[in-house]
Amino acid sequence: MVPLTIARRAPKEDDVEIAIEFCGLCHSDVHVTRGEWRLPPYPLVPGHEIVGRVTRVGAAVQDFAPGDRVGVGCLVDSCRECESCLDGLEQYCERGNIGTYGVPDPRNGNAITQGGYSTSVVVDRRFVLRIPEALDPAAAAPLLCAGITTYSPLRYFDVEEGDSVGVVGLGGLGHMAVKIAKAMGAEVTVFTTSEAKFDAARELGADHVVLSRDEEAMAGANRSLDVIIDTVAAPHDLNPYFRTLRLDGALFQLGLPAEDMPPVSPGLLIRRRLAYAGSLIGGIEETQEMLDFCAEHGVASDVEIVGADQLNEAYDRMVAGDVKYRFVLDTATLQEPSERADA
Amino acid sequence: MVPLTIARRAPKEDDVEIAIEFCGLCHSDVHVTRGEWRLPPYPLVPGHEIVGRVTRVGAAVQDFAPGDRVGVGCLVDSCRECESCLDGLEQYCERGNIGTYGVPDPRNGNAITQGGYSTSVVVDRRFVLRIPEALDPAAAAPLLCAGITTYSPLRYFDVEEGDSVGVVGLGGLGHMAVKIAKAMGAEVTVFTTSEAKFDAARELGADHVVLSRDEEAMAGANRSLDVIIDTVAAPHDLNPYFRTLRLDGALFQLGLPAEDMPPVSPGLLIRRRLAYAGSLIGGIEETQEMLDFCAEHGVASDVEIVGADQLNEAYDRMVAGDVKYRFVLDTATLQEPSERADA
Repeated sequence: MVPLTIARRAPKEDDVEIAIEFCGLCHSDVHVTRGEWRLPPYPLVPGHEIVGRVTRVGAAVQDFAPGDRVGVGCLVDSCRECESCLDGLEQYCERGNIGTYGVPDPRNGNAITQGGYSTSVVVDRRFVLRIPEALDPAAAAPLLCAGITTYSPLRYFDVEEGDSVGVVGLGGLGHMAVKIAKAMGAEVTVFTTSEAKFDAARELGADHVVLSRDEEAMAGANRSLDVIIDTVAAPHDLNPYFRTLRLDGALFQLGLPAEDMPPVSPGLLIRRRLAYAGSLIGGIEETQEMLDFCAEHGVASDVEIVGADQLNEAYDRMVAGDVKYRFVLDTATLQEPSERADA
Repeated sequence: MVPLTIARRAPKEDDVEIAIEFCGLCHSDVHVTRGEWRLPPYPLVPGHEIVGRVTRVGAAVQDFAPGDRVGVGCLVDSCRECESCLDGLEQYCERGNIGTYGVPDPRNGNAITQGGYSTSVVVDRRFVLRIPEALDPAAAAPLLCAGITTYSPLRYFDVEEGDSVGVVGLGGLGHMAVKIAKAMGAEVTVFTTSEAKFDAARELGADHVVLSRDEEAMAGANRSLDVIIDTVAAPHDLNPYFRTLRLDGALFQLGLPAEDMPPVSPGLLIRRRLAYAGSLIGGIEETQEMLDFCAEHGVASDVEIVGADQLNEAYDRMVAGDVKYRFVLDTATLQEPSERADA
């Protein structure tokens, strides 16, 4: 990554212009930036965990005003017309949602969207979130992706007081899953491959920690969970986790490995009527609900703030798993562009 | 298979003695009898799709009387105490349900249960079903396994008028899935590997038939279904079927291949919040509900009645897929035992 000057569009009627304060570093930024999924359209500005303050609004914008603290997550638009969009599930837009960076934006001349490792951004008001003032802005940034990605399946599964939730992996997503599930009143079991993470898991609020390669400990967790949030993005055998689920349990896989997963045993699914399920971030309405929930319950991400000159190193540390639990870029460290003009 | 004389227990207080009229031949009978899953306790009488008439009842039995037409499915007992049993989900008994044949029966001295290819059976009243007189007894027999196995996931998924249901495979289970889904008011798409089955699928009521190896036809079914009932018991790639599901859709796999299934793509699950799920037969209450539903809607199995001397040939034909759609044994063709006494 190197410094780059880009132009943002002048706010249109429905647009909100935001001075970005912080942007979380998501593991998917690494995949996309390094072309590990497919070759992205370079030059590219990554970042979809954006928090800042409104600087200008378009003529039709009633619900945001300059000075408001706002956020932008993984989506900046969608077709707004399909069944998913009408149901507030813009992430599942049948025509394809418009991601915050790296995709053509049909409502803006198919310009490639550019993300939040940047000093400002202009986004349609429909895709702008309100960040409660009770939340620390840097610690709130990762809620826009890591937070909603874990909150949404927990809500979809109707997790409530007294339910038992398993969390596989204790990274950016995993640590949010633990905090959010605890805030929902669940008993939380963390599965980790590393004994070194036991204390950290407990500090986050986990009631139980299980070393996933300890067969005896795994057997002890048999039939103990209602739902599992699996955040591991590398291929791994899910069958031992299915055994920890109770009747009608579900395992939500949120990570997207580049290689095939080992086969799932249909017999395990059949014998307890289990579901192996997926879930993608969350819709705008639900993301706002999650932000309000986090403010109410004092939940935010554990972050390490980095400057622009540390981005490349931070990526290497993310790949090595050396972060507790999310890097957040302080955009004040970005070079000011030599000139600034509406595109 | 050869003739064998077995003793049935004298009816205890809660028992119902049944003179068996018909017993369906389930594909799992082949697997178990031939030791393809694990070596069963020989000698063994298979059969768990039993229809007959009550001959005697125990002193505590109020709800059945001699002459009643009744049925017995895959279960003859369970612990009756765990959460699953108390919820009427005896098939998911946490201590293990007691199958109709081939397992030790703890409430009866751990005698190995013996199934319905037999002239009589004695079963606790809690596991005896009422067969509505409106149903043909031979055609009703397969409802006790093939019927409930497909009915239960359709009900669990709340299939109703106007939903779209896919059925993969058109054998004993598949043909029941088509009929039951149609009776629930769904639009039904059958996926088959054989063009030769197109007419048969339509005769059963399918609205659409798709040749699963025709990529264009599969693409045409993209995002068209709410739920899929997959009845194929051989390893097969599920990913093309996931693509035919709409947001929040589910694929229930009911068949249990002896080898690993090809890997499921988590990306497909994630992008439409899909579930890959299992389901095991049904509980006693739901099985009765299914029988009443079938009587009300005129649904039964398409059967070919065979005699005892045709059983071995019928097994070979089942393995070859040469049956439309279920063999049913007429137990009047069994040799009468030389002597008959309560064990």
